[in-house]
Amino acid sequence: MSEHDKTTGFIPRREFLKTGASLLTAIAVPSVLAENIKIPQSMLIPGEFDSPYGSPSTFEKDITRVIPPHGNAAFTPIANQRGIITAPGLHFGAHHSGIPQINPQQHELYIHGLTERALRFNLNDLERYPLQGGIMFLECSGNTWSQALSDKAANKSAQDLYGLVSGSEWLGVPVKLLLEEASIKPEGKWVIAEGSDAGTHARSIPLEKLMDDAIIALYQNGERLRPAQGYPMRLFLPGWEGNMNVKWLRRLEVVDQPAYTKDESRAYTETLPDGTIEQFSFYMDVKSVITHPSGQQKLQERGFYEISGLAWSGKGKITKVEVSDNGGITWLNAELHSPILSKSLTKFSMPWHWRGKAAKLQSRATDEFGNVQPTHTAWKAQYFAGSYNHYNAIQSWAISEKGDVSNVF
Amino acid sequence: MSEHDKTTGFIPRREFLKTGASLLTAIAVPSVLAENIKIPQSMLIPGEFDSPYGSPSTFEKDITRVIPPHGNAAFTPIANQRGIITAPGLHFGAHHSGIPQINPQQHELYIHGLTERALRFNLNDLERYPLQGGIMFLECSGNTWSQALSDKAANKSAQDLYGLVSGSEWLGVPVKLLLEEASIKPEGKWVIAEGSDAGTHARSIPLEKLMDDAIIALYQNGERLRPAQGYPMRLFLPGWEGNMNVKWLRRLEVVDQPAYTKDESRAYTETLPDGTIEQFSFYMDVKSVITHPSGQQKLQERGFYEISGLAWSGKGKITKVEVSDNGGITWLNAELHSPILSKSLTKFSMPWHWRGKAAKLQSRATDEFGNVQPTHTAWKAQYFAGSYNHYNAIQSWAISEKGDVSNVF
Repeated sequence: MSEHDKTTGFIPRREFLKTGASLLTAIAVPSVLAENIKIPQSMLIPGEFDSPYGSPSTFEKDITRVIPPHGNAAFTPIANQRGIITAPGLHFGAHHSGIPQINPQQHELYIHGLTERALRFNLNDLERYPLQGGIMFLECSGNTWSQALSDKAANKSAQDLYGLVSGSEWLGVPVKLLLEEASIKPEGKWVIAEGSDAGTHARSIPLEKLMDDAIIALYQNGERLRPAQGYPMRLFLPGWEGNMNVKWLRRLEVVDQPAYTKDESRAYTETLPDGTIEQFSFYMDVKSVITHPSGQQKLQERGFYEISGLAWSGKGKITKVEVSDNGGITWLNAELHSPILSKSLTKFSMPWHWRGKAAKLQSRATDEFGNVQPTHTAWKAQYFAGSYNHYNAIQSWAISEKGDVSNVF
Repeated sequence: MSEHDKTTGFIPRREFLKTGASLLTAIAVPSVLAENIKIPQSMLIPGEFDSPYGSPSTFEKDITRVIPPHGNAAFTPIANQRGIITAPGLHFGAHHSGIPQINPQQHELYIHGLTERALRFNLNDLERYPLQGGIMFLECSGNTWSQALSDKAANKSAQDLYGLVSGSEWLGVPVKLLLEEASIKPEGKWVIAEGSDAGTHARSIPLEKLMDDAIIALYQNGERLRPAQGYPMRLFLPGWEGNMNVKWLRRLEVVDQPAYTKDESRAYTETLPDGTIEQFSFYMDVKSVITHPSGQQKLQERGFYEISGLAWSGKGKITKVEVSDNGGITWLNAELHSPILSKSLTKFSMPWHWRGKAAKLQSRATDEFGNVQPTHTAWKAQYFAGSYNHYNAIQSWAISEKGDVSNVF
């Protein structure tokens, strides 16, 4: 046993691989006599037919998104996800004026402004173009807002705190191809992207991003985008804050400077400690959370647990996730699970033995550009009091001697 | 232009990247005056709230699985998928005795037979173990059975022909850890896996596979397995034929030789040309299909199209997909899209210009071990007449001068 094992419950991977079986006897699994193997009821009656569009087990009916009373968001049950793909029915959502139900045959996308020609695309046109994309995360810039605002850590779950991030396979038409067809004039530097929702959600996007990896997303996890995700089409900007990925996209207007729309001046803008405004905060920063175990869960008994969670960075790949069970005194590298993809959720895990003592679990992610998550205090120092977007500090979960897991700073 | 371009419509990637915009004017997109940009109805009325568990647009209600009258399978709409992840509601299914609805708190998994101790696991126990897995395909060994049986190619869609394969992120407990806890006796070489369905579906699995990458799958695409996929738990054997991935798993019995269950003697076994039986056919072979365009679709006009499809191999990674539009006279390498994962669906694509002439589209996949898809004739020569499992021949789609796409040999 290494020195780390004397002070923490982490099991170094080389030891776990070597002695996995004996460590696992720390889980109390009952022996059974072969003659006592039960025949379940399901073997005595024929089962049911499938339905054309399937659904989860009725025994999973409580695993849903949480929608707050004002109705403008849906928090994904991230502690139940366990991998990098979010089920379509459980993907987070956020909107300011409700979800329009759009007939795709009547929907049109315009590209106009500082272009040689204005173009109109319908869905049939877009179906002809190449599709690009991949498995990527999407996160609301306000995810974990309550951690940023509170002085005292609220007793909330991972879903309540971290439920505005999800992972999907997103596929769509590269925006670059459409802009090249419209032919941008030399003075065109920015593009106003506008949705066809009742609130006319609009953001100014620098042309460079649209000529890089931006897509007009049409497909998500093997089917068309759902209405809550912008059906029939949304802008998707890999790694950038959720609200810029304009849903129900109807218009890309090429302009020479940012439009300072209400959605980038009133909301989704940060104030720096000296009172000046940060222009702009496009990227979602490197971030991670242990989801298993996490807030409001309970360890029922001592013994083996696999600590696992998710890490992501809007700038690229996750290269390292360190975990601590003693509040950051010692850190060990967690295992990163394949596939490790750019601008995607990445799963990490660490074998752990809980000895029934109080512990403080933390994870700290690093991305391929060396960006590392700050502490809660260091994050707060970056912004004016009352700021809450782009919170990406290290998350701490306290384990009590009774096994209760709770959110702490 | 290369010699290939004179005989086929494929656009070599280097030329496509260089002149993408001008090639794309081969898609007729209308110009529009800015003052004619319409305000859609959705901007005039507030939208709807989201629901706790979301659903697709009502305009997508016809994109479902096809369930034949005898009800024992559900064919995924693979031509609508476009990526490597299948939506949970659209994942293919196959069963012989209906889908049991199992209360997970009453479900038990036994490991017994030639072990030092017999063990009983419930879902709470398994939740304590490490989770492994990843993004992988699952395919019924009978997928494309009608291609194998017919002498004349039927006018069917990609969904009808290829709808028994899907891709998901599968996560579960490594079977190795559980078998090590039970401690296998030296004479234990095989394991009978049995489901808790009314038909007592059972297969014999060689111990080597279970000690390698097999998992007791609990999660699929971010949520629990659905009932049609084995809720609350199924065996998942990466790359191996679907029916061996026993659903509603209740029992792993360690034995010294195969049990020759009905599910591996009556069904799911192949007869070789000399009349002997092939023991066994575990791996799903290298395979691919162009899904866009595909059977029963129609090219509405001449011009640019992106040809795209899916390739997979039960033995490892796809390393190459070649495509032909002249019935195999010339072949060009398609682009493989990231992520390219072992035992996973892999997306491929190729830019193409349809000049309004008859064409014959084909794709031919190669995996990392050099396995290549055979022709229809070569595949038939491998088995006794009337064989239909494990069909993996090159798929051909004919394009008529009118643009109709149909299945041909």
